[in-house]
Amino acid sequence: MLSINADRLKKSVLELSKIGYNETDHGMYRWGFTDADMEARRWMMEQAKAEGFKTFMDGAGNVFFGIGDYSKKPAVLTGSHLDTVPAGGIFDGALGVLAGFEVLRSIKENDVKLAHPVWVVGTAEEEGRFGGMMGSQAIAGVLNPDWLMSAHDADNVYLKDAMAAHGMDVMDALDAAWPPERLKAFYELHIEQGPVLFQKEITIGAVEGISGVFKWIVHLKGKADHAGTAPMNMRSDAFMGLADFAHEIERIIAEDGTDKTRITVGKVDLKPGSPHTVPGEAVFTIVGRDMSNDVMKELADSCNKALSAIARKHRLKFEYEQVSWLNPQACSEKLTKQIEDKAKARNYSCLKMPSGAGHDAQFFTEITESGLIFIPSVNGVSHAPDEWSHWHDVEAGCNILFDCIINSAQ
Amino acid sequence: MLSINADRLKKSVLELSKIGYNETDHGMYRWGFTDADMEARRWMMEQAKAEGFKTFMDGAGNVFFGIGDYSKKPAVLTGSHLDTVPAGGIFDGALGVLAGFEVLRSIKENDVKLAHPVWVVGTAEEEGRFGGMMGSQAIAGVLNPDWLMSAHDADNVYLKDAMAAHGMDVMDALDAAWPPERLKAFYELHIEQGPVLFQKEITIGAVEGISGVFKWIVHLKGKADHAGTAPMNMRSDAFMGLADFAHEIERIIAEDGTDKTRITVGKVDLKPGSPHTVPGEAVFTIVGRDMSNDVMKELADSCNKALSAIARKHRLKFEYEQVSWLNPQACSEKLTKQIEDKAKARNYSCLKMPSGAGHDAQFFTEITESGLIFIPSVNGVSHAPDEWSHWHDVEAGCNILFDCIINSAQ
Repeated sequence: MLSINADRLKKSVLELSKIGYNETDHGMYRWGFTDADMEARRWMMEQAKAEGFKTFMDGAGNVFFGIGDYSKKPAVLTGSHLDTVPAGGIFDGALGVLAGFEVLRSIKENDVKLAHPVWVVGTAEEEGRFGGMMGSQAIAGVLNPDWLMSAHDADNVYLKDAMAAHGMDVMDALDAAWPPERLKAFYELHIEQGPVLFQKEITIGAVEGISGVFKWIVHLKGKADHAGTAPMNMRSDAFMGLADFAHEIERIIAEDGTDKTRITVGKVDLKPGSPHTVPGEAVFTIVGRDMSNDVMKELADSCNKALSAIARKHRLKFEYEQVSWLNPQACSEKLTKQIEDKAKARNYSCLKMPSGAGHDAQFFTEITESGLIFIPSVNGVSHAPDEWSHWHDVEAGCNILFDCIINSAQ
Repeated sequence: MLSINADRLKKSVLELSKIGYNETDHGMYRWGFTDADMEARRWMMEQAKAEGFKTFMDGAGNVFFGIGDYSKKPAVLTGSHLDTVPAGGIFDGALGVLAGFEVLRSIKENDVKLAHPVWVVGTAEEEGRFGGMMGSQAIAGVLNPDWLMSAHDADNVYLKDAMAAHGMDVMDALDAAWPPERLKAFYELHIEQGPVLFQKEITIGAVEGISGVFKWIVHLKGKADHAGTAPMNMRSDAFMGLADFAHEIERIIAEDGTDKTRITVGKVDLKPGSPHTVPGEAVFTIVGRDMSNDVMKELADSCNKALSAIARKHRLKFEYEQVSWLNPQACSEKLTKQIEDKAKARNYSCLKMPSGAGHDAQFFTEITESGLIFIPSVNGVSHAPDEWSHWHDVEAGCNILFDCIINSAQ
């Protein structure tokens, strides 16, 4: 059984982590289409070219390198993103690209004979500076000119201007789409960015898909009263309505959800928000997630019913706006099973699990069979300078990626 | 049985309501020591003088008018405040002063023979522009030079400067204290500013005292997590801790409280306060009230226990700061009983009740027997232009005040 070269992978990870590193907060700064982000892309292509691989950058800023001619036979593609959130960690995204690079090197070094081309992609703008996952969306062919021209970041810098600053034309992103027949499979290796594998001491996550998510903004309207003069039983206290709902979340999940369900109240505004006034209005968010669209519908229905009943009890007016509803994106059952099998063969502990965060892989599911491999995040931390994954887990994850790619490319 | 002149009282209320009236929002603007507030004080003294009563303004801005010499025999004092909150109503405060004026007129008109002097006070700065109830505090002798020099409003205007603008010296407020032996009793007629009398269709409230109040700022600290990647059972969700506590309020009141207990969560801040992040911290206020200091202590103890247990369950750190603890101020049982008896004699429905809001009377309890009479507020509204009380209730309240004053002054 062949294995990847863990030291060589580690060296690449540490070298890339110098690009965009901030000495003050020890975080990575490769926000999409900044100078550091573009420098990382050029560095990646130079590294691949130096080892004899074919390389190119597409119109969306995605960098590619690989073996074989995918115009003749569909390719096995792997990769992740090269950009980071501001003050991010060194593994989020970069690991998946450099693990793909290491797999290519191991294939070449061991002279592994493959029937299909194997290519690696370092995608652009996955972290959503401009509100999407622009690089993988371009490859999946789901962008359009209107969005490309309108997209801007929180500081009102337009995507088109950020790209033009690097000599790129935003409209070229539309040329980056891959026809499905060009692809045999897609794999992504990524850190979990959550606590499950770390807490359960499991090495490999075989991701069955990206959870669907719905977001509501809920308004409960009652009556603002003097907190001294209004007796408890004469109040229409909007906050107490919210508290009663929060108390129902556990029951709703137990009745209608699964072990993959998440329901979160993350943002609450009370009006007038004064200690001595009974809250007349509560505006809050509900974010619900599950791997099944049918389960999500039942959860949403139960939230609606619970809130309606609670509003009647507390004499409140209940309204909600469904801000978004994203369907779950299933990974390929075959590839997920294969990840589990390969982990078993190497005696790595493995857990089949959903991903609650978004990943490039979710757009690849639209054009090819896709598999997503997780390794543990220490304490579940990510998007912060204290993000970390142990090197032995990095090695294990890269070995599974290697096994899966060989399997698919044979 | 003698009665007051309801038409004359109504006329006075409507005339005073022209001073500080805002034509745009229809609210009263007689914030303490503004021009309109001082104009109202001068108007009140002129009215009383024109009818032959002795008048004076003390060093705190309180205006007095009455019959008899209180240096010889202790006086029965009645009154309330002449200042209003910005955009307040026409009855809050003014009613108690003008009802006192009407009682004086009725005594004079009917040539009622009384053994004790009867005086009326229109107190200054009850609404707390400068953070206290300055007028009645001055009369009760609880002010001190440090506070007088430091007191300022939310716009950093100092009390001393606001008074100097009207030719007054803030230190003269210290000369306004009344020795207890000068007083036989104090009565205040006020609108309820809550919904109880209006909803129960009761005419007179015989107030047994001003509720005590404690205010806590509570910190629950957990861990901010990605709302997608953190499973429900691995979270330390500070908001869920708060929601669990809110759910316990009903039980805590049932176990340790009374029908006069109020517990309110009026202000909530979640950190980071993002829809997609499990709240890592919740900062919120608890304001608790009751008529018994012992009950308040039990309520506070139960809140502490409940929060400690909930914090353990949700793996949160729990801390609280007790911002204030004001003991309940009991009215005179004798005078409260007398208010009930007088209401019965006139066939007015009457309810013995606490006041959850503060009133001038609470400082008079420190120097003399005090009685507080409520009349209904339509829909419980106050501190707003839509504050209203029906004229027949105003008449009833003033008649009870008349009966009580005659009784005490005989």
